[in-house]
Amino acid sequence: MNRLRFLTAGESHGPALSAILEGMPAGLELCEEDIKRDLRRRQRGYGRGGRMKIEKDHARITAGVRYGRTLGGPISLFLENRDWPNWLEKMSATPVENPAEPLQMPRPGHADFAGMIKYRQNDLRNILERSSARETTMRVAVGAIAKKLLQEFGIEIHGHVIRIGSVVSGITAMDEKSGLSGKSKIDLAKWKELVDKVETSEMACADEQSTKEMMLLVDEAQKRGDTLGGKFELVATGVPIGLGSHVHWDRRLDGIIGGAMLSINAMKSVEIGLGDGVAETPGSKVHDEIFYNEDKGYFRSHNNAGGIEGGMTNGEPIVVRVSMKPLPTLVRALQSVDTGTRLPMQAHHERSDVCAVPAAVVVGEAMLAFVLANALMEKAGGDSIDEMKRNFAEWPDVPMGW
Amino acid sequence: MNRLRFLTAGESHGPALSAILEGMPAGLELCEEDIKRDLRRRQRGYGRGGRMKIEKDHARITAGVRYGRTLGGPISLFLENRDWPNWLEKMSATPVENPAEPLQMPRPGHADFAGMIKYRQNDLRNILERSSARETTMRVAVGAIAKKLLQEFGIEIHGHVIRIGSVVSGITAMDEKSGLSGKSKIDLAKWKELVDKVETSEMACADEQSTKEMMLLVDEAQKRGDTLGGKFELVATGVPIGLGSHVHWDRRLDGIIGGAMLSINAMKSVEIGLGDGVAETPGSKVHDEIFYNEDKGYFRSHNNAGGIEGGMTNGEPIVVRVSMKPLPTLVRALQSVDTGTRLPMQAHHERSDVCAVPAAVVVGEAMLAFVLANALMEKAGGDSIDEMKRNFAEWPDVPMGW
Amino acid sequence: MNRLRFLTAGESHGPALSAILEGMPAGLELCEEDIKRDLRRRQRGYGRGGRMKIEKDHARITAGVRYGRTLGGPISLFLENRDWPNWLEKMSATPVENPAEPLQMPRPGHADFAGMIKYRQNDLRNILERSSARETTMRVAVGAIAKKLLQEFGIEIHGHVIRIGSVVSGITAMDEKSGLSGKSKIDLAKWKELVDKVETSEMACADEQSTKEMMLLVDEAQKRGDTLGGKFELVATGVPIGLGSHVHWDRRLDGIIGGAMLSINAMKSVEIGLGDGVAETPGSKVHDEIFYNEDKGYFRSHNNAGGIEGGMTNGEPIVVRVSMKPLPTLVRALQSVDTGTRLPMQAHHERSDVCAVPAAVVVGEAMLAFVLANALMEKAGGDSIDEMKRNFAEWPDVPMGW
Amino acid sequence: MNRLRFLTAGESHGPALSAILEGMPAGLELCEEDIKRDLRRRQRGYGRGGRMKIEKDHARITAGVRYGRTLGGPISLFLENRDWPNWLEKMSATPVENPAEPLQMPRPGHADFAGMIKYRQNDLRNILERSSARETTMRVAVGAIAKKLLQEFGIEIHGHVIRIGSVVSGITAMDEKSGLSGKSKIDLAKWKELVDKVETSEMACADEQSTKEMMLLVDEAQKRGDTLGGKFELVATGVPIGLGSHVHWDRRLDGIIGGAMLSINAMKSVEIGLGDGVAETPGSKVHDEIFYNEDKGYFRSHNNAGGIEGGMTNGEPIVVRVSMKPLPTLVRALQSVDTGTRLPMQAHHERSDVCAVPAAVVVGEAMLAFVLANALMEKAGGDSIDEMKRNFAEWPDVPMGW
Repeated sequence: MNRLRFLTAGESHGPALSAILEGMPAGLELCEEDIKRDLRRRQRGYGRGGRMKIEKDHARITAGVRYGRTLGGPISLFLENRDWPNWLEKMSATPVENPAEPLQMPRPGHADFAGMIKYRQNDLRNILERSSARETTMRVAVGAIAKKLLQEFGIEIHGHVIRIGSVVSGITAMDEKSGLSGKSKIDLAKWKELVDKVETSEMACADEQSTKEMMLLVDEAQKRGDTLGGKFELVATGVPIGLGSHVHWDRRLDGIIGGAMLSINAMKSVEIGLGDGVAETPGSKVHDEIFYNEDKGYFRSHNNAGGIEGGMTNGEPIVVRVSMKPLPTLVRALQSVDTGTRLPMQAHHERSDVCAVPAAVVVGEAMLAFVLANALMEKAGGDSIDEMKRNFAEWPDVPMGW
Repeated sequence: MNRLRFLTAGESHGPALSAILEGMPAGLELCEEDIKRDLRRRQRGYGRGGRMKIEKDHARITAGVRYGRTLGGPISLFLENRDWPNWLEKMSATPVENPAEPLQMPRPGHADFAGMIKYRQNDLRNILERSSARETTMRVAVGAIAKKLLQEFGIEIHGHVIRIGSVVSGITAMDEKSGLSGKSKIDLAKWKELVDKVETSEMACADEQSTKEMMLLVDEAQKRGDTLGGKFELVATGVPIGLGSHVHWDRRLDGIIGGAMLSINAMKSVEIGLGDGVAETPGSKVHDEIFYNEDKGYFRSHNNAGGIEGGMTNGEPIVVRVSMKPLPTLVRALQSVDTGTRLPMQAHHERSDVCAVPAAVVVGEAMLAFVLANALMEKAGGDSIDEMKRNFAEWPDVPMGW
Repeated sequence: MNRLRFLTAGESHGPALSAILEGMPAGLELCEEDIKRDLRRRQRGYGRGGRMKIEKDHARITAGVRYGRTLGGPISLFLENRDWPNWLEKMSATPVENPAEPLQMPRPGHADFAGMIKYRQNDLRNILERSSARETTMRVAVGAIAKKLLQEFGIEIHGHVIRIGSVVSGITAMDEKSGLSGKSKIDLAKWKELVDKVETSEMACADEQSTKEMMLLVDEAQKRGDTLGGKFELVATGVPIGLGSHVHWDRRLDGIIGGAMLSINAMKSVEIGLGDGVAETPGSKVHDEIFYNEDKGYFRSHNNAGGIEGGMTNGEPIVVRVSMKPLPTLVRALQSVDTGTRLPMQAHHERSDVCAVPAAVVVGEAMLAFVLANALMEKAGGDSIDEMKRNFAEWPDVPMGW
Repeated sequence: MNRLRFLTAGESHGPALSAILEGMPAGLELCEEDIKRDLRRRQRGYGRGGRMKIEKDHARITAGVRYGRTLGGPISLFLENRDWPNWLEKMSATPVENPAEPLQMPRPGHADFAGMIKYRQNDLRNILERSSARETTMRVAVGAIAKKLLQEFGIEIHGHVIRIGSVVSGITAMDEKSGLSGKSKIDLAKWKELVDKVETSEMACADEQSTKEMMLLVDEAQKRGDTLGGKFELVATGVPIGLGSHVHWDRRLDGIIGGAMLSINAMKSVEIGLGDGVAETPGSKVHDEIFYNEDKGYFRSHNNAGGIEGGMTNGEPIVVRVSMKPLPTLVRALQSVDTGTRLPMQAHHERSDVCAVPAAVVVGEAMLAFVLANALMEKAGGDSIDEMKRNFAEWPDVPMGW
């Protein structure tokens, strides 16, 4: 089995969401506040509807932590849905006298249509309650714990929005201005500045001008009853050389990262480093030449590989880009069919979020954190933070200049 | 464990490549010719160097098949490297008197640098022999078997090149002309025509004009000593509704497909359906509206979802796009460092392939076939083709118009 | 991944135990009462101390079930420890002002000694809270759900105590009197009678005379301040032919069952069918000869194989026997060492259970149920009870006489 | 996925057996001779028929090793069946003109009956060729590599026969005379002596007198046309504290070991340490009290736990006992049914081995080695022997007196 694994459970309007994270080392400092921060960040974003306000999620740690430190056993997270009292009847685990009317119009872009057939359900609520992006809440909670582990080893993960609809951010991690790329080696202070800007942007965008334009776009879409997709970028800094492997297809870290990203609801593309750009760029310009000098150690000309060569981390920042489709629940109705009558029908939504990309960034961070934490534990071995650190300290000294 | 799993082994210049595929049902017709076809296709492509000619790979089935049908046990494939006599000394499993000089210059874009550090090797041959794309040969062999299984259920997988460097193919599966999209429902005859063209194109491209331009580009790059990347598209037709699932993150089929694609050497991006295009397109235009009429059953306005909604197949063709970086072994030298002396050094290659995208298509097909075969077996259950077919026949009848 | 999987979490004196069971089909009838029955059975047994009375466990279903039926998504179970208010300080997830004194004397027979070293803990409570058999509560809850699934397919699992210390039960499933063995074929009514007796025995023993003797033995041991181990037997009836497989070592059902049994705290041996008895019996008497007649179909001379040949179920009842060591927490002190001072020390326990074998039976049933449910789902495929049943109905008709 | 995994393939009379072992660290010394020794040992034993002489197995390493050391990539093993020329027609992978007559009488005690139904075959050869114990050859080969890894860390695994039919060996690892148990601490020299005796015994038994009696029993059985089962014991010495874990059911090492043992063809019981004996022995005598003195460090009163407490290794030798059923292929016929005609039939065998327990010991060793190697790698982390050793050296110093 994997060194680290987790299961989540919970319907969007059920009594609670829960998760169990198994395989974490003992001795990691952890408290509910560590998780809360990312749960809050997951609810951010300009142009989001009312549900987000209701939620104010708080995940309780009910197992695996004592006196502020992990015990090495499974960590259990339990998050009660505040809205549950309004759903007691509709989502009751036991039969009720007046069950809710079955929903029978599958919404385009959702799991509804295929789910109804796969699971032989005629009430779409039985599908949509679990397929809802509400499920990602627990991924974010799990990811927050993974981040805590990574931080102990100097690994940081930050994401930001780089596109909303037609507006492309002026700043990406692949640019010289990010501090993360180029012959002058990595300048983490510069990167830190950008990251701070992301946290204050209503669109989770590092570029102030772009943030404004994105907000305008959201306003416009809202008026039209439309929704907007976009693209975000994740960066992991401080990643040691040699996570993942070239030796077998399913140990390649880029594959594992790619799989984790496309497992997030609504994501339709994932790129590593230069990504799709490699298709048009000649080899002489794509590959990151290798240099060495005494001050900086080994370094690269640029980071088109996005920190991964041959399925392994190469010491440069990992850069991942993910595209998210617009929310499929629109005020402006989409055409569908009533599966009961097979007559045409239109989705009718009184209100809807316009854009969830700033929130999705946090889910992306969480999944990347989980994948890297697992890879780090496999490489480092050990069952406690102390043991992992000792093993980590012994890794060959290949100064990468940061 | 997974219903279907495989391991591969073998160094690029070792005595043999091998694979074991475990979990296949009994009773599937299978012979070595079934595999040979795709092994040949993997060696295609204009502008490939001499190695490909030497190889003419033949995988022998040494277990799991009797009298032309699978037995239900592991299938073993064994492929001898024809070039092995020239490498007896350099790649000997036992110590030799005059071992080859250690290679110490990591090539940018390869596993060399990270692999050397991860595995504590000072001879790069110990890394590159396994990280070589030669390994994908066995994936193709395994994939050919998976395709045979899928064909029994009417599922076909075809891939084609849609971009080489600056040349973009005039035809993609998302276009109306592919026969695979649009309100008039799927026209498999049209698609079959395109697929046939791909097989006769030297660039595995469905568009004849684009093929010519791509070949010119290859010639040009060859003169410059450069290499070219590109992009390919995979299409699976006949896929039933309900493979994959929305219920848990790691059961989502798009995630599993994405992971499989980025596990292929040199792939840097993967997209499902409209892919990256969802970032700029508003929701009202992205989602595939649902229609029904008596002749065609349920059908869609287009297939931007690429056949997957909510992590499940929705009955439309699965469309996957993958970008491949240019080969990192260039005649035109890239800068690197001798890890022994830490002095700058230049990669020196007398000859090199220019472009491997047409070959990579076949690896992509193989990985997609493996993923879908596993998903199909999970859904259908059973241990023999007959049992699978009976279970399959019982799936709810939701006519999708093909 | 496995078709069915579960994670559990929770410390013995923490706020709650929890579990997530992932992979169950949709449409299975399920309510909390189904689980409660086995939770109660897990707390049975003559000679058990006070804790059992406190517990009266109730597992709440917080996800995966609606209107009395499973949804196909993860099922989440949450069980609050009633004793938690007394442990708020000692088991706080956050640091407290007056933390409990660290425990430093590892108890022989427990995880304490190895756990302390593995996880680098100097307070044994950080180990024992998770290693406690309290954890098996959630396995029982998960197993109760697995049993519900099996019952839909006519598969029943029942366990009973066959030995406590020196007292051996007069009845086992391998006897002619059980109704489960012998040329006259299976007589389920007879077996049902025995099973009913087990449920009313204070020692979960089918033989009334043996029950009395076991109780006397418990009284005696209690006086001596000692504890007692024993042996139980599990029987699964109605199991179809062909679960598990001979084709690969890790698909063999006997291996999987054996692993599941020895994963239960305190179990030190597991046997299938005749078990250890095969070592002394000659081949001519061990193997179950095969007969056929029109009334009964295929049947066997006896069931020494315990229902499994070649790693697969053969249609006869599965019989598993498991030995449990005596509880390692004794009133009569065992010798140990204070790991702080390295001075000798004696375990001091004011009270302790004498014998937990009748409770352990239920854990054994649960693990067997989980293993068989997974095997059944792999064989049947499908995502809903209806689909599974249709596939199941199609299995070849090989009348085994019941 | 597991840190270490392997697949095997091959039919008993097919062209070849093969295996791929994936996950081994780089830098381990390995040559074909290391494997050959155990392949030879697997063919040992008094009273074995002619096949064993034919075989003289030699596994070729075709990948993963260069200049006598592992590369970190998958290790491929390929073993040609010497008897293959005699089976070209009967076991051809392609259809032949005169196929062999289908076998239709399932042999009691074999996979035949269930396999035929599960895989829908009407020729039993399609089952028995894979279910044959011939398959364990590759497990032994894989285990030999795992042993090499363990030896680098001072871990040794040795097995011996402790019972054949009615003859029980005078020596077991739990006795004081083994040197492995008791307050005087472990005396490895004594154990070494016994192990050497095992290797020269025709019955792989440490007790010379018992060996003779076992051989007589074999002679007798042969005359009667009968077969014999027995029991063997495996001991792993030098095992560090803390492999396996108490934190989750499927991480418990005793469960994993138990599963591996019962996955071996013909094994019907497995015990850890005192095993089944715990059922009758009171708690005051079962648990291994803990002592400490400056010379020896921590030590135990005895080793009834068999080296595992709470699912973890506790520093004492691991002791595992396994019972094997008699070979089900007897000269003296067993009753069965022709599945074609459903008429009674008798198995007819001209010759057969009488007893395979001495050979099975080697398979047991192999599976235990594999399990421990995986557990060691998970704990130590790392990708090369050097890195593992450094990490291993850092483990807390808890002198266990050896």
